[in-house]
Amino acid sequence: MALYGAIEAGGTKFSCAVGTGPEDLTAQARIPTTSPQETLARCLEFFRAQPKLDALGVGCFGPLELNREAAQYGHVTTTPKPSWSNADIVGPLRRALSLPVGFDTDVNAAVLGEARWGAAQNLDTAIYITIGTGIGGGALLGGQLAHGLVHPEMGHLLVPREPDDLAFTGSCPFHGARCWEGLASGPALERRWGKPAETLPADHPAWDLEARYIASALTSLVLVLSPERVILGGGVMQMDALFPVIRRYLARSLAGYVQAQALNQDIDQYVVAPFLGTRSGIAGAIALAERAALAGA
Amino acid sequence: MALYGAIEAGGTKFSCAVGTGPEDLTAQARIPTTSPQETLARCLEFFRAQPKLDALGVGCFGPLELNREAAQYGHVTTTPKPSWSNADIVGPLRRALSLPVGFDTDVNAAVLGEARWGAAQNLDTAIYITIGTGIGGGALLGGQLAHGLVHPEMGHLLVPREPDDLAFTGSCPFHGARCWEGLASGPALERRWGKPAETLPADHPAWDLEARYIASALTSLVLVLSPERVILGGGVMQMDALFPVIRRYLARSLAGYVQAQALNQDIDQYVVAPFLGTRSGIAGAIALAERAALAGA
Repeated sequence: MALYGAIEAGGTKFSCAVGTGPEDLTAQARIPTTSPQETLARCLEFFRAQPKLDALGVGCFGPLELNREAAQYGHVTTTPKPSWSNADIVGPLRRALSLPVGFDTDVNAAVLGEARWGAAQNLDTAIYITIGTGIGGGALLGGQLAHGLVHPEMGHLLVPREPDDLAFTGSCPFHGARCWEGLASGPALERRWGKPAETLPADHPAWDLEARYIASALTSLVLVLSPERVILGGGVMQMDALFPVIRRYLARSLAGYVQAQALNQDIDQYVVAPFLGTRSGIAGAIALAERAALAGA
Repeated sequence: MALYGAIEAGGTKFSCAVGTGPEDLTAQARIPTTSPQETLARCLEFFRAQPKLDALGVGCFGPLELNREAAQYGHVTTTPKPSWSNADIVGPLRRALSLPVGFDTDVNAAVLGEARWGAAQNLDTAIYITIGTGIGGGALLGGQLAHGLVHPEMGHLLVPREPDDLAFTGSCPFHGARCWEGLASGPALERRWGKPAETLPADHPAWDLEARYIASALTSLVLVLSPERVILGGGVMQMDALFPVIRRYLARSLAGYVQAQALNQDIDQYVVAPFLGTRSGIAGAIALAERAALAGA
């Protein structure tokens, strides 16, 4: 049986694992994100201590160059994160380990993980949204991970302002209060209500407003991508009570325009938490490794 | 050389053609949209009078059932259009002509036509938006036409209200002034300004507002789909002067978040009119026929 390496590469830590799937991770390590050189060196140290791998998969914070014909393929591109701008991720890993390396955004990895072992199994078209420090979205579209000019940055789609929230100036440094992330990320909640999202009680009015913004953004995503399922993860979504409220507002916002059982009678099964909990990303990195092994790249 | 039949099936007319591409249409007919039976019978009459075809392609007004495993595959589904609800389009054509029939939405056909012969040639990911009586969008994503739970209905994505337009109640029967179509379709323009869009002079303030709404919607589409090119057609876009204003507002709205030359220095080539003019749809229907012939379906 093939054995894969996986990296969930985030802004604060790189989670490394070895295994065949989310239920079978034989080794794991958490490496703090410091400089690219040091962080990747510590990842390599971890993988070199493991049995021979068949491929490696990396789900990485972005923005990324995913075009295989580009000179910068496999790099983080223009992040404001100190020292990571133009950092080559795939190159050093491939050279050091002599393995096929699969590479995609953290959120594309997460949707792929859910497609392989979780909430999007047997679906061709699904999205995974993480709502936490930022908002990001990955998409499986017709069985392929969403790439294009670059890759989706769904967290910054524009949403209409709620009428009881007109004074808030938003938290997005690029789009202020015009975009979803500026209105509904964890930092937006903290800025609007003056305390961290995780300290707001379930009956705080923050959550109804939050559900409306999430439902508005999902309305646009459903109309643009027509996903078969919407998976919502990330720190803010740990507030479980959000789910039924989001579903109700989503149905109201779509207003019956799209006739589909999934969006009406079955909406409880349409907008769901990740079946893999917090392991969607690392599972997705394993699935990226599987795909890389198959492609031999 | 293979010869294809094409139908651009719209709410007021069915345009039929025979040929090998948009520059080589050897016969054409315009059939008014009446009942499904009568309209399809007249289409069949046209195609039967032509030389033997290799396949037929149909780009059709929606909503449509595009899932090949569904019993209703090839039908219009829940349109309010009298007598077209649950109308079978593909079945009668395939049975009568014994040909492979390609079938998709009118806007997916249009983006495919532009990908085959027009503004999206050699691109994997592109969108075609028509702004007219309604707003609709088709997408080529990783080389495949966008399908999912159903198919995209991009015209209804939500856009933030412009601050100088707060009194307008919108024209969308489902979403009022919350969605793009309700704020920026031809009927929305007519309702807001009290006269038909085509009678509004180029220096009318309607156009600056229109450009802002289109730019807001494109901001979301660019962030969600990451298209390599955006093609804008339809009646409202006959106002050529809109293009530079839309590009300027789009760049401002994205605010440099996505670092890509196409969205900065090269934005004039990024948001464009269809290269095929008003023939994107019929060309796309021919391209659907080509694909159906290849697939033998």
